Amino acid sequence: MGFLDIFSSGRATRPRGIPHNERINALSDGVFAIVITLLVLELKVPEVEPSELTHELREMLPKFIGHIASFLVLGIYWIGHHNMFMHIQRHDRVLLWLNVLFLMLVASMPFPTGLIVEFTEGQLPLIIFFGTLAAAGVVLDIIWWYATRNRHLVDENIDQALVSFVHRRVLIVPLIYIIGIGVSFASVLAAQLMVIIVALVSIVPNPLDRFHSEQVQSTGQEGE
Amino acid sequence: MGFLDIFSSGRATRPRGIPHNERINALSDGVFAIVITLLVLELKVPEVEPSELTHELREMLPKFIGHIASFLVLGIYWIGHHNMFMHIQRHDRVLLWLNVLFLMLVASMPFPTGLIVEFTEGQLPLIIFFGTLAAAGVVLDIIWWYATRNRHLVDENIDQALVSFVHRRVLIVPLIYIIGIGVSFASVLAAQLMVIIVALVSIVPNPLDRFHSEQVQSTGQEGE
Amino acid sequence: MGFLDIFSSGRATRPRGIPHNERINALSDGVFAIVITLLVLELKVPEVEPSELTHELREMLPKFIGHIASFLVLGIYWIGHHNMFMHIQRHDRVLLWLNVLFLMLVASMPFPTGLIVEFTEGQLPLIIFFGTLAAAGVVLDIIWWYATRNRHLVDENIDQALVSFVHRRVLIVPLIYIIGIGVSFASVLAAQLMVIIVALVSIVPNPLDRFHSEQVQSTGQEGE
Amino acid sequence: MGFLDIFSSGRATRPRGIPHNERINALSDGVFAIVITLLVLELKVPEVEPSELTHELREMLPKFIGHIASFLVLGIYWIGHHNMFMHIQRHDRVLLWLNVLFLMLVASMPFPTGLIVEFTEGQLPLIIFFGTLAAAGVVLDIIWWYATRNRHLVDENIDQALVSFVHRRVLIVPLIYIIGIGVSFASVLAAQLMVIIVALVSIVPNPLDRFHSEQVQSTGQEGE
Repeated sequence: MGFLDIFSSGRATRPRGIPHNERINALSDGVFAIVITLLVLELKVPEVEPSELTHELREMLPKFIGHIASFLVLGIYWIGHHNMFMHIQRHDRVLLWLNVLFLMLVASMPFPTGLIVEFTEGQLPLIIFFGTLAAAGVVLDIIWWYATRNRHLVDENIDQALVSFVHRRVLIVPLIYIIGIGVSFASVLAAQLMVIIVALVSIVPNPLDRFHSEQVQSTGQEGE
Repeated sequence: MGFLDIFSSGRATRPRGIPHNERINALSDGVFAIVITLLVLELKVPEVEPSELTHELREMLPKFIGHIASFLVLGIYWIGHHNMFMHIQRHDRVLLWLNVLFLMLVASMPFPTGLIVEFTEGQLPLIIFFGTLAAAGVVLDIIWWYATRNRHLVDENIDQALVSFVHRRVLIVPLIYIIGIGVSFASVLAAQLMVIIVALVSIVPNPLDRFHSEQVQSTGQEGE
Repeated sequence: MGFLDIFSSGRATRPRGIPHNERINALSDGVFAIVITLLVLELKVPEVEPSELTHELREMLPKFIGHIASFLVLGIYWIGHHNMFMHIQRHDRVLLWLNVLFLMLVASMPFPTGLIVEFTEGQLPLIIFFGTLAAAGVVLDIIWWYATRNRHLVDENIDQALVSFVHRRVLIVPLIYIIGIGVSFASVLAAQLMVIIVALVSIVPNPLDRFHSEQVQSTGQEGE
Repeated sequence: MGFLDIFSSGRATRPRGIPHNERINALSDGVFAIVITLLVLELKVPEVEPSELTHELREMLPKFIGHIASFLVLGIYWIGHHNMFMHIQRHDRVLLWLNVLFLMLVASMPFPTGLIVEFTEGQLPLIIFFGTLAAAGVVLDIIWWYATRNRHLVDENIDQALVSFVHRRVLIVPLIYIIGIGVSFASVLAAQLMVIIVALVSIVPNPLDRFHSEQVQSTGQEGE
């Protein structure tokens, strides 16, 4: 096998998994694009007199913040999915279904977002919001675990340090959401602020980026 | 021509059909992404007092189940379409229109889903829901039949066993829906449960996956 | 220039136009996917008693037909755009804007469709519906005219017969719509039936398909 | 590494940045496609008697103009993003987040558009509309600034004149919007007319196009 790899332009026949994940990515990008756009669409233009518009828009401030927060947490997951599928090069039926499950959770986000935006002081909406996101994060990690198991859907030479790093990186997000659910029993406001912590953890560049970058460049898995 | 095929990297000029199905796939992925996202969007945030929210969400349980079911059945068809178009490498006008017809049935799913979710105990909504899905499944099979006829839109060396296998695999889904329509005359609830049977048949890995996988790897039809 | 073409894998540097139309196609596929899906979304689940559902759905029949007709006419334009951009291989600012204009007309279709579906017997809605479609068809032809002018955005060796054929093929559709507007002054119903004529003209395979097919295969413009 | 770059088909390993921006483009195209389609969807079919339809549609004229204007300004940004990402060939975490921020502003456009369409004479809606667009334009320019800094995400040999040209070209659009905000304090109508100026500046071909065209052809960065 190893010897013939030289002639098959880097994409060797491996025990399991079918190459070409383009459509998995296309479906996923489509779902993310629609969800983040629809989140904003939920913001209804207020039906008030022109003179009351300023006041009304100020009243909508919690809604704006809720939607921006949703946008950011979805951005985090899109980037996570994007980076993960730079390494996942093949698929099988189980991976397709895991990804559909992940997308189902992502696609459902307008509902929990609508809940926290309508019931800003409620604990239940926040638990549903955090719970959906935590479930999506866990499924994303299962995808990574499944794909890297025996390296059957990733590059055989992928660095074990990278595999572990991605796990930690992906899991920290749902972990914070689960902690947020716990915190919500003490203070809903404190739990809401945890979304900002997640955003900071994800936006600030970190050592994973270099790992990720070097790995992609050394294996060159999509190298044409 | 046959001799030169050796040098044209596996994509020989064949009697009919134009290569490059990327945009067919892109349109299809777009329609699927939108439909599965919109299904969830139909779930409206309840306009009740905060104290009634828990009760209200419990009331919405049938809706949640209905939408998850729709998500799964659409997931089945996306995966079916995805796997089928791994083998279909060329197109002509008839294939384009068959695919548009398939997408029209897929795009119409929010309406039947809305019907079964609103009229949970009715037989007519279930017949429309199953009927639309069965029609989509049959069109998907016609696409396969058309594409493999004389092998004019698939790889010439495609294994006949794979062709037959895909047919059986694709047709079992609408068949169960048609049986479900029959069952609905006896019991609507029993018919509803059949959606779960379809999901199980489709999610559990099976011999087709290995066929599919081996075929893709041996012909390497998108092999750059 | 001609001599060096041999070494530049078929994509020669030409006086004007930038290669890579992938994103033009992606944006266009996205708009089409959304529009055809949203058309169906306009169909609202009737809010009636279960016992009245059968009657209500029968009442909705003109709406169903209206949406299927819209779906078909959009399918025609997507296929036309698809086939045209198999030959258009480069772009410039003017082409980008012509395509944005075309997409604006396509994206606006839910509004005229809503009009003819709500006002089934009105002439004005039909004129707006046909007018929007005719405008889109004319813009599509202008795109073709612009791209083939001096061959500056298509393959230099494109067959003149094909260029003319595509013009005739594309223009026949808006022509029928314009005739339809005229007919609507005599009979709205007769004008409505003309949509079916357009569909038949477009769905039935014809000599263009062979031209198109042969041209794509002989020039192999996306040939990797 | 440096020596082997010669053999790696023009895509050399560079200090920072990961190749393959396909999914960034796919997500962006998706968001644009949805937003421009949803803009039109906001146009509700009037619920009036058939005899009042003509009058009602005439009443809706400001809405039509508002939506066409939104369509054009979004078209300008899509084309700007498209042209910019012809040169940006790699990405890192910061670029991904800058792009998500840009898309968030783009995705939010239906809300300000709804405001100016509902409150046609108000100054506040126009400030929000121009402000959102100006912010999107500035973020787009930051993306360009970030990507071309040390050339770390663009072609190393990119012409400095092109870099500056794109900056000027991109920044002129938000600049006009900011001037528009100032003008709105004097006259709302005059400020509204400035949208047309922006459109004219962007649609008319200009020297940048040639620069852009030549640069793409000489570096051939996506050259397979």
